[in-house]
Amino acid sequence: MMKITMAKAAVTVSANGGFGFVAGGFDLSNLAKDLGEAAELVKSQGLPFQDGILPIGVGFQNWGSDLKLALAAITAHPVAAVWFFAPNQLCELLDWTKEIRAATNGRTKVWIQIGTVAEAVEVAKTSKPDVIVVQGADSGGHGLAQRASILTLLPEIADTFSKDGIAIPLIAAGGIVDGRGAAAALSLGASGVALGTRFLASEEAIIAKGYQDEVLRVTDGGVSTVATTVYDTVRAIYGWPQAYIGRGVSNRSYLDAVHGMSESENQELYKEAMKQGDAGWGPEGRMTTYAGTGIGLIHSVQPAGEIVRSVQRETVQVLQKTAAKFAK
Amino acid sequence: MMKITMAKAAVTVSANGGFGFVAGGFDLSNLAKDLGEAAELVKSQGLPFQDGILPIGVGFQNWGSDLKLALAAITAHPVAAVWFFAPNQLCELLDWTKEIRAATNGRTKVWIQIGTVAEAVEVAKTSKPDVIVVQGADSGGHGLAQRASILTLLPEIADTFSKDGIAIPLIAAGGIVDGRGAAAALSLGASGVALGTRFLASEEAIIAKGYQDEVLRVTDGGVSTVATTVYDTVRAIYGWPQAYIGRGVSNRSYLDAVHGMSESENQELYKEAMKQGDAGWGPEGRMTTYAGTGIGLIHSVQPAGEIVRSVQRETVQVLQKTAAKFAK
Repeated sequence: MMKITMAKAAVTVSANGGFGFVAGGFDLSNLAKDLGEAAELVKSQGLPFQDGILPIGVGFQNWGSDLKLALAAITAHPVAAVWFFAPNQLCELLDWTKEIRAATNGRTKVWIQIGTVAEAVEVAKTSKPDVIVVQGADSGGHGLAQRASILTLLPEIADTFSKDGIAIPLIAAGGIVDGRGAAAALSLGASGVALGTRFLASEEAIIAKGYQDEVLRVTDGGVSTVATTVYDTVRAIYGWPQAYIGRGVSNRSYLDAVHGMSESENQELYKEAMKQGDAGWGPEGRMTTYAGTGIGLIHSVQPAGEIVRSVQRETVQVLQKTAAKFAK
Repeated sequence: MMKITMAKAAVTVSANGGFGFVAGGFDLSNLAKDLGEAAELVKSQGLPFQDGILPIGVGFQNWGSDLKLALAAITAHPVAAVWFFAPNQLCELLDWTKEIRAATNGRTKVWIQIGTVAEAVEVAKTSKPDVIVVQGADSGGHGLAQRASILTLLPEIADTFSKDGIAIPLIAAGGIVDGRGAAAALSLGASGVALGTRFLASEEAIIAKGYQDEVLRVTDGGVSTVATTVYDTVRAIYGWPQAYIGRGVSNRSYLDAVHGMSESENQELYKEAMKQGDAGWGPEGRMTTYAGTGIGLIHSVQPAGEIVRSVQRETVQVLQKTAAKFAK
């Protein structure tokens, strides 16, 4: 959602056996242009472009984004899927779902990301998406303050759906960076997995070197990252729905906030840090490194296509090796 | 650790293909008696009792417990394993490890539970336990306030150990209640899994009906449980090392604390609630229901032996079914 994985990353992921999403975020004023760029890439690479539908998706941060702009972009460049996240109220997604489906005659599939069993049931019964993304507590960036990891959240949603006769596929997100995490998620009952933090260290990511270097440097993700609202307030972003916080690497902004620095002083220091470029990141820096707890599993920048292929390959290897331990 | 799984539960788990631990907790004054009871059960059930070693373990909450009492109990009734957790400083476990190993001529294996990569490396290089239990953020009861779930924590420890040439088996704990969670943990690289919350709903648990009923009632574990120090302070327990909090079902004590009730008033109301017996539990109750985020996956009280067998059976089924999806 942070405009780090854009046209090139999304198309590369889809070209390599995954399904890539362009970050729409909340400011959609450039979305039509970004999708136009993706369309050019899809054509120039000779990728499937059936019925004029781009083989990628768009992610929306719904609380701050404008449905009219979304519709204009998607009408001009129909995409195979949209991903909704963090509306002010879940019921707002009814309109988004209905209007986007109408705009492409139902050819755009609707994915909705949720963080609790109650949210999963609510969207399944109201917006009726094609896919539900189950976001667990290990995820980077924004998510619910109160939540479980996918370890318990995903099976509980699967059981509840099964009991209620709901047959919407579940995609696991939050803490998956390699084939081990993906194999775990599939064992928990997921139909697929979504990787976010891992692509911060992809060659196609549009990301400051200071940020990407932090992703490679940081280890022990459970203690080195914090889930907090501080990284919103230092940037004077106040629009997130109450229930959300954001996970990022603990840095000077966070520590100063914890030790009582005023919001306005922290914001001023953040603005100063922005002028330092890549040097504004780091343990004593103030620029935000949103990332999940899996950050310590990432050691190199790779092409996005290679990330997809290696995760898929490793997932199968891990499952076969683990199952083989119990072969008769 | 809460004296809920005692001799009968531990022996039953070991008799059914698992490995059971008696809760030593921090007050060890009854431990010798509890182990004597376990020894009687082991003998009466004709279980293996090789070299006079009980086929069970004992769990210690180290910050509050007395090594001399532990040694006396284990000398009288040698056990196959001890499980250490939450010392004031990890280096205190050096003495515990050395003296307990000496007391049984190394026949007692040492398990140490940790919650971060740094802790895992430290204990591996100092106390050198036989087993490391990796506790993730979904676990019930006490754990580190700052931590990841086993989804990222376990693989990061496995990779770090592999790089450093450390070959200590890892057991995953926190959020595992059934074969799906166990299959996930094994896929992440665990050599085995530990279940805590699941055994609160076992027939052998020594637990108030009010508590056990809550375990069956509560759903959506990520939102219905909270990780907090409130459940220590309402019981006037102040000894936990700073880094720890405890996860339990959100109740009146917690909500009152959040809304500013004084500690002393909350403690008085807790004492009143204790007089209500089982009625002291529940959403408007004040008695603590320590439990992990997997609480919503538990729907019935079962014999501990059946829990062990069904989790083992389901683990293999899940792994084989999931791996089979990728069969050539």
